[in-house]
Amino acid sequence: MTALLLVAHGSRRAASNDEIRALTDKLREQAGARFDDVRCAFLELAEPSIPDGIEQCIQAGATDIRVLPYFLSAGRHVAEDIPEEVSGKRAEHPGVRIEVVSYLGLAESMPALLLSMAS
Amino acid sequence: MTALLLVAHGSRRAASNDEIRALTDKLREQAGARFDDVRCAFLELAEPSIPDGIEQCIQAGATDIRVLPYFLSAGRHVAEDIPEEVSGKRAEHPGVRIEVVSYLGLAESMPALLLSMAS
Repeated sequence: MTALLLVAHGSRRAASNDEIRALTDKLREQAGARFDDVRCAFLELAEPSIPDGIEQCIQAGATDIRVLPYFLSAGRHVAEDIPEEVSGKRAEHPGVRIEVVSYLGLAESMPALLLSMAS
Repeated sequence: MTALLLVAHGSRRAASNDEIRALTDKLREQAGARFDDVRCAFLELAEPSIPDGIEQCIQAGATDIRVLPYFLSAGRHVAEDIPEEVSGKRAEHPGVRIEVVSYLGLAESMPALLLSMAS
């Protein structure tokens, strides 16, 4: 069972966290057969935390979890904080594959998406 | 002459600002006939500022400028700060159309892009 965990920074502004939850709902609707489970988690300031989000996926039956950082640049959060949070859960669940994929800002199709928004 | 101005937050980390400049180069390469000019600007912590970026577009001949906030959520920066910076330049140049388009996080194709990154 494969799960997608969208990881956002988290905000003091509840509406920003709700935007992430709404985006996660859309991801779930559009995931089709690609993911059995789609959830979100937050690095800070909102719930669930990244370890709790991973745990939710595992409790729901996931054996393969893709963690996708919803971040635009490769700062400390992407380079250090998220991998660190993930590695703790990986050690706890050696039978579960937990992979951190590229952060959003690296998407190859980002220029095309931006051009379509501006045109 | 139509210009696209990608507006990012700006970072103390030079590499993050350079990521924006590299993305702007890709946008310029892929813009084809849609935009005659593609530039970037920063809300804070990096140069050029938003007013300076708009001024550069105008000096290069732009009469129609699309300002695209490279932001993931509709916080104060997107809702207030960017429109405020833009409205000052609009008042200075009444003959130039300056439009702020949707911020990145609102992109309709965002779920599809994220699914393709995670699959």
